[in-house]
Amino acid sequence: MEMKTIDIKIKKAEERSYSIAIGSGFLARLPEVLKKDYPASSYIIIADAKTKNLFGKRLLLGLRQAGCKALLLSVPVGEGSKSQKRKTSLEEAMLKAGIDRRGVVLALGGGVIGDLAGFVAATYMRGIPYIQLPTTLLAMVDSSVGGKTGINTFHGKNLIGAFHQPKAVYADIRTLRSLPDTEIRSGLTEAVKMFITSDRESFVFADVHLAKALAKDTGILAEIISRAVRIKAGVVERDERESGERMVLNFGHTIGHAIEKLFTYTLLHGQAVGVGMLAEATLAHRLGALSPEDLALIRGMLKRLLIPASLLKQFAPEAVIAATKGDKKSVGGQARYVILKKIGVVEIKHGEFVQAVEDGEVAQAIRNI
Amino acid sequence: MEMKTIDIKIKKAEERSYSIAIGSGFLARLPEVLKKDYPASSYIIIADAKTKNLFGKRLLLGLRQAGCKALLLSVPVGEGSKSQKRKTSLEEAMLKAGIDRRGVVLALGGGVIGDLAGFVAATYMRGIPYIQLPTTLLAMVDSSVGGKTGINTFHGKNLIGAFHQPKAVYADIRTLRSLPDTEIRSGLTEAVKMFITSDRESFVFADVHLAKALAKDTGILAEIISRAVRIKAGVVERDERESGERMVLNFGHTIGHAIEKLFTYTLLHGQAVGVGMLAEATLAHRLGALSPEDLALIRGMLKRLLIPASLLKQFAPEAVIAATKGDKKSVGGQARYVILKKIGVVEIKHGEFVQAVEDGEVAQAIRNI
Repeated sequence: MEMKTIDIKIKKAEERSYSIAIGSGFLARLPEVLKKDYPASSYIIIADAKTKNLFGKRLLLGLRQAGCKALLLSVPVGEGSKSQKRKTSLEEAMLKAGIDRRGVVLALGGGVIGDLAGFVAATYMRGIPYIQLPTTLLAMVDSSVGGKTGINTFHGKNLIGAFHQPKAVYADIRTLRSLPDTEIRSGLTEAVKMFITSDRESFVFADVHLAKALAKDTGILAEIISRAVRIKAGVVERDERESGERMVLNFGHTIGHAIEKLFTYTLLHGQAVGVGMLAEATLAHRLGALSPEDLALIRGMLKRLLIPASLLKQFAPEAVIAATKGDKKSVGGQARYVILKKIGVVEIKHGEFVQAVEDGEVAQAIRNI
Repeated sequence: MEMKTIDIKIKKAEERSYSIAIGSGFLARLPEVLKKDYPASSYIIIADAKTKNLFGKRLLLGLRQAGCKALLLSVPVGEGSKSQKRKTSLEEAMLKAGIDRRGVVLALGGGVIGDLAGFVAATYMRGIPYIQLPTTLLAMVDSSVGGKTGINTFHGKNLIGAFHQPKAVYADIRTLRSLPDTEIRSGLTEAVKMFITSDRESFVFADVHLAKALAKDTGILAEIISRAVRIKAGVVERDERESGERMVLNFGHTIGHAIEKLFTYTLLHGQAVGVGMLAEATLAHRLGALSPEDLALIRGMLKRLLIPASLLKQFAPEAVIAATKGDKKSVGGQARYVILKKIGVVEIKHGEFVQAVEDGEVAQAIRNI
């Protein structure tokens, strides 16, 4: 018999545009905003044990006072909660509470909560809306924007997950008041990463105002967050699924993730990425792409951010390289790197934003630090 | 401080159009087709213990002979494999084998395998491509097309999952040769469901040619499959995410899923849906929407498909209704129904394709069968 072929053309792109609001002290007004702009059969606040007490209970009360149904679920603090086990418990709790497709998840916390709660929303009844309420600087400048969600496995970070864009992001800088200095530095490191790959002028801005930022000056932090978010939003708009340009945001992450893995995820993400940035900037210099002056500027900035470069000395370069092989950017078992040309510009070869580099070069760069 | 707002506009719809090929005996040529049209760093064949032996091993060998890397993973036969546990084991096996983002999953089997393998592909490294290779009539007419993937939980079927469209569907009718008659009837029941809701002329075609179809006549089966797939493709094109029209395909499924749940998923899906169709057609008649003549036509067809109407008598109507409450179409704990107006046409009220119905009406309709 002849073959029949039927074509299916899925034309309509769903609406996946959204706003990121950055301000100070609006968390208290959020229930009314949510009720009006994002009506839901129930709001499911997902927090960790800490953000639950700091902000979650008050948000729950506020939502109920506004006449909304709401539920507050929490997981332990820390990267360990980005697990299938925690995801399943949250789903079970939501199913047991009868949450339907018109429920809206509120991800209240740092990157761990954003990634986990976003992934729960991505697969609950094949996808329900969620809103990011980042309470760490790192989450504000980076992970709350762009729709990457996921969990970790024994084999590495974020290996199981989904692209699921939030309906909105509300970054309330007042929540940063209680954040330890190490966390502020961790967030600034990610912001600086974006400036290094995409915007020299913002790098200079951060360099000039670093002391104020470290002292949690609200205006400076808001400026740094919105500059970082604007860069990220632009990249995500052009390449949501990380098939090209979005990989630029992985600068420092090939080695950063390897170090996190070697330290069994006990490091702060920003610290590991900072060390990775140092290693990968050194690599770019070694490959003849980055000038010594720009390398020095980057080193100086990372030093002021107290990036513990010595961490890299605790493992043989070969062990670090072995730990990069499971990276999601890998092709055929070979890790790939974002190579800096100068601050604000990365190398693009044959249309690719990441490049394969020989293991020997990477090892030597690590030794050179 | 004033609030800053940054907008993110994700414009580019990813390419999610694809073809469904229906023919006989082309499975042997598939490795060359895949190699040419869907190049991959590795092909991951996911099968159940039965399809692994019937077709999987040969496909694995063929891919390797064509010079491709390939891997064959299997799960036990049956609905029980649509579980988080099996999903996690498949992911672990893929990660261990070093499958990267350029891997392509081949879902070789019936609906269980398509849903499970599709969901694995949906979340592996935030989504990799997959191709449906349905080997049951039910999967060919229905589940392999449309991108619904997922697993079951204690609380109900398909409650965790994703919309993830396959890159292609290849339905080789020759694989149906070994399929038991009950499975053929189960598949025909789903095809008839689509005709009942959307295409009276195809309902008549199926009615006239039912004996040949039941005897696995290749030409008739191909015609029924392509008619059903054409209806489904049209609906999915217009409403991928089941926010409206696509819910029409749930005719028979509100009660069908409840019955499956009451029988702890030991029934064939098509049988449960057949019983559900009978109940929901009776409900439509009771509500004054469906004529007695059309109800009789539907009853006659379902009888020839050996739908075991008596299953409904094993539970009190109240128990059936209670089991519908967790349905994904529910809003505020109230199950909703596709109401037939006549064969080929469903009721649309206030733009909604599903309607809330009082529990008492549903109970009476179940008693009336």
